[in-house]
Amino acid sequence: MHRQPVLEFWYEFASTYSYLTAMRIEAAAEAAGVELVWRPFLLGPIFKAQGWETTPFSLYPAKGRYMWRDMEREAARLGLPFYRPEAFPQNGLIAARVALLGSDRGWTPAFTRAVYTAQFAQGRDIASPQTVTDILTALGLDAESVLTEAGAETNKMRLRRMNEEVQSRGLFGAPTFFAEDGEMFWGNDRLEQALDWAVAQARRGQAPA
Amino acid sequence: MHRQPVLEFWYEFASTYSYLTAMRIEAAAEAAGVELVWRPFLLGPIFKAQGWETTPFSLYPAKGRYMWRDMEREAARLGLPFYRPEAFPQNGLIAARVALLGSDRGWTPAFTRAVYTAQFAQGRDIASPQTVTDILTALGLDAESVLTEAGAETNKMRLRRMNEEVQSRGLFGAPTFFAEDGEMFWGNDRLEQALDWAVAQARRGQAPA
Repeated sequence: MHRQPVLEFWYEFASTYSYLTAMRIEAAAEAAGVELVWRPFLLGPIFKAQGWETTPFSLYPAKGRYMWRDMEREAARLGLPFYRPEAFPQNGLIAARVALLGSDRGWTPAFTRAVYTAQFAQGRDIASPQTVTDILTALGLDAESVLTEAGAETNKMRLRRMNEEVQSRGLFGAPTFFAEDGEMFWGNDRLEQALDWAVAQARRGQAPA
Repeated sequence: MHRQPVLEFWYEFASTYSYLTAMRIEAAAEAAGVELVWRPFLLGPIFKAQGWETTPFSLYPAKGRYMWRDMEREAARLGLPFYRPEAFPQNGLIAARVALLGSDRGWTPAFTRAVYTAQFAQGRDIASPQTVTDILTALGLDAESVLTEAGAETNKMRLRRMNEEVQSRGLFGAPTFFAEDGEMFWGNDRLEQALDWAVAQARRGQAPA
């Protein structure tokens, strides 16, 4: 029997293309027989290291205009609702801290999809603690205690360390995928190639145990 | 009978992802029943307008390192040879002027593929008049007279005007595709969507005559 392939999925909550991936990756990974590791992170510090104070979609208007149009088309092609939020990029810090906390508890995928849906299908403000509270409550969780724990120093530091660590592995945008051998794929357009790579790598048995 | 759909294909000779498209677009367009318009242009002035003195792959090293790896993988996936040129980006000015001249004479697709092959499969310097001369000669053309005509004021100005015109239509990178209704698609990853759009648009008969 083969070992099950594993793929890391790194996403930023404000990232439009990460939304497309988050909504379809679970079905795609299941079909490919790949186990997913969901990894929320923050693009802000990554962009700052490249000299950008905000997203390139704001810094370069022609690229930004195209992105919104491309998102409309790609969301339609993938059968996903898409609403352009009034504010962009939104601050995904609280959501990222909560998603990280949930990663040891099994509810991160559902929480992540709910946050993206609130932002890009319902036009809600994900920086607002109320939005996050509503989502946690709908998932049957104790929102107040989760938010307190997510905002505690341990969890905040863990998110920061993971951000620094993944930056040192070459990540520069979102979504980004890593196979177990460190092979990196960037963008919703590379999800299929990333899954294929993870499967082929596990078959070769070259991954560290 | 339906009118045949038309798609404009805008490419820069130094662009790695334009190479992937140039080598596969003719077969893809034929399969889709789409007529192609080949449009060489220069990314330099487009990048300068965004405040970049060179390609973002040089300005942002993490993005550049990823691009070379992604090119290796994507070229392999598409069955294309790929050689990373010693110098990047190369100056595609002469090649672009020649390709524009050929666009009324029917040899631009063959010339374009030969220039990309010289650069990305054979590691040759496409800025060199000798490389362009060799390619034109192999195509059975009078290289000296083509190069003279390509470098004449009329052709130089035509390239400059077309560059300004396409920039005003929203183009910000390469490769870029335009359907007849002005719908724009960016990147080798969007070739299939661009062809689909052109076909659907022609079926609706909404294109200007």
